[in-house]
Amino acid sequence: MEAKRSLLAIFLLLSFLSISTAAPTRKTRTRKPCKSMVFYFHDIIYNGHNAKNATSAIVGSPQWGNKTMLTGQNHFGDLVVFDDPITSDNNLHSKPVGRAQGFYIYDKKDIFTAWLGFSFVFNSTQHKGSINFAGADPLMNKTRDISVIGGTGDFFMARGVATLMTDAFEGEVYFRLRTDINLYECW
Amino acid sequence: MEAKRSLLAIFLLLSFLSISTAAPTRKTRTRKPCKSMVFYFHDIIYNGHNAKNATSAIVGSPQWGNKTMLTGQNHFGDLVVFDDPITSDNNLHSKPVGRAQGFYIYDKKDIFTAWLGFSFVFNSTQHKGSINFAGADPLMNKTRDISVIGGTGDFFMARGVATLMTDAFEGEVYFRLRTDINLYECW
Amino acid sequence: MEAKRSLLAIFLLLSFLSISTAAPTRKTRTRKPCKSMVFYFHDIIYNGHNAKNATSAIVGSPQWGNKTMLTGQNHFGDLVVFDDPITSDNNLHSKPVGRAQGFYIYDKKDIFTAWLGFSFVFNSTQHKGSINFAGADPLMNKTRDISVIGGTGDFFMARGVATLMTDAFEGEVYFRLRTDINLYECW
Repeated sequence: MEAKRSLLAIFLLLSFLSISTAAPTRKTRTRKPCKSMVFYFHDIIYNGHNAKNATSAIVGSPQWGNKTMLTGQNHFGDLVVFDDPITSDNNLHSKPVGRAQGFYIYDKKDIFTAWLGFSFVFNSTQHKGSINFAGADPLMNKTRDISVIGGTGDFFMARGVATLMTDAFEGEVYFRLRTDINLYECW
Repeated sequence: MEAKRSLLAIFLLLSFLSISTAAPTRKTRTRKPCKSMVFYFHDIIYNGHNAKNATSAIVGSPQWGNKTMLTGQNHFGDLVVFDDPITSDNNLHSKPVGRAQGFYIYDKKDIFTAWLGFSFVFNSTQHKGSINFAGADPLMNKTRDISVIGGTGDFFMARGVATLMTDAFEGEVYFRLRTDINLYECW
Repeated sequence: MEAKRSLLAIFLLLSFLSISTAAPTRKTRTRKPCKSMVFYFHDIIYNGHNAKNATSAIVGSPQWGNKTMLTGQNHFGDLVVFDDPITSDNNLHSKPVGRAQGFYIYDKKDIFTAWLGFSFVFNSTQHKGSINFAGADPLMNKTRDISVIGGTGDFFMARGVATLMTDAFEGEVYFRLRTDINLYECW
C-alpha cells in the first residue's frame, strides 16, 4: 500500500518533469542580464587645429561638406572614424581601460541621428577581449539602445543591448557617451 | 509482482527522459520563424538637383568618382548614406511606419553588389524599437538574404534573416526594396 | 524491502535529473565549435597604377589623405572597400571558392588597427550562402579575433568567432589574411 502511494508520487513528479523538459528553448529566456557594465568614452573630433588631441576625424562627407568641419543639415552624410579612450568614470583624464574603435555616420537631414559600428577593445587587468556593437543612435533622445552583436576573449560570444547617453557635449569638438552594457547571452 | 512491473515502467520512462534532457541545446532549434514581417523602403539618391526629395547621398567614392553621380564599373567604391522611409505597402507616399537608416557600399567592379549596414527604426503605434541588419547584397539576384544581427525595444535581442527584393528601380535615382523579415530568435 | 530500495534508487535518480533540467539554458553552452573552417583571402589595393588587378580601393580618407596612397599616421582614417577572392589554400592563383566583400577603416593614429565589416559570399559546389563578420582588427597582433554575427544559406543563423592572421604582406599593395572560422551556433 505504501509502495503504491510512493509510485503515485513518482508518477506525478515525472509528469511535472516531462512538462518542464518539453518546453521549447525560447520559452526559458530571461530578460535579466547575465552581465552589466558601465563605461564612458570620449570623442574629440579633428577640426583642422587640434591634430594632437583629436581622437576622431571626418573621412567621408557629402558633396557640400568638407573634412575639417561637420556639415550643416545636422551633419547629414559625415562619416567619422574614431579611436576613443574608454574610462570607468566620466573623467577624460582617468586611466583608460580600453579603446572604443570604429565609425559613425550622420544619416538624417532634419535631426541629429547616426549609425554606429564599433568595438570596445579592452586590454586591462580587469578585462581582455572585445565587445562589438551596431545600431542606430538618435542622438537627441536622452537614451538610445543599440545591439551588442558579438564579443571575443572575456566577452566570448556575448550578445545584448547597450544604452547610450550623451554625458557631455562641448561645441562640435568634444562629446562623452555613457554606455550601459547589458549582456543577455554569456558563455 | 505488480510493483516490479511498475518499477520497470518507471525505469523505461526515466531512460527516455534522460535521453531527451541530455540532448544538446542546438538540437532543439527550429527553422520556423517566431515572427515574420514585410516592409518596403524607398531610396532617392542625391544627384545634384534633387536636394529636397533626396533621402540618401554619396559620401565616399574612389579616386575616379564624384559625389553627385554613381561611378562607372558598377558603382564600385561608392559609399551611400541613407535615411529612407519605411512603408507597409509598396507606395512611396503611404504613411511611413519608420525609417531605414545606415549605409551601403558598392563593392564589386564587374557586377552590382553592395555591403549593407543599417537599422529599421520604428516609432509607430504598431512597433517601437529597432532592428539591426548587416550583410552582402548581390543586387542582380532576384532575392538576397542578409542577417538580422540584433534588435531593441519590441525587437529586443532579435536574430534572423531578411530577404531583400528590388521592387522598383528608376534610373539611378530611385529604388524600392521589399524586405521580408523572418526572426528565429525572439525574446 | 527490495521494492523500498528500488524506490530509493529512483528518488536519487530523479533528484539528479531534476537538477540537470533546472539548470538555466546558458549553463549548457559549450565552447566546442559546431563547425570549423579555414580560408584565405587576398587584398590588392588600388594605387593608381594597378586598376586591372586591384581588388580594393580607398574611398574615404581624412583631410590630409588621398585615394591612391594609404596615408601616414598608420593610415588613420582611410576607408577601403574590397571584393577579394577567397581560396582554400594560401595561393592567390588557386580557384576561388567565394568572395570576401565589405570594408575596413584604419582607425588609430599610433599603430595599425582597423575596423572590419564584411561577408564571405560562397558560391561553390562545397558551400552556398554567406557568413557575416564585424569587429576590431589590431593588425600588429599575430592573431586577432572578430565576431561572426550571422549567416545565410548553408550558414543559416550562424554565430561564432573568426581568428585572423596576416599570412603575407607585400609593400602597401598586397596582403593575405588567413581566417580560421569557428562557429558555436549552428542551426
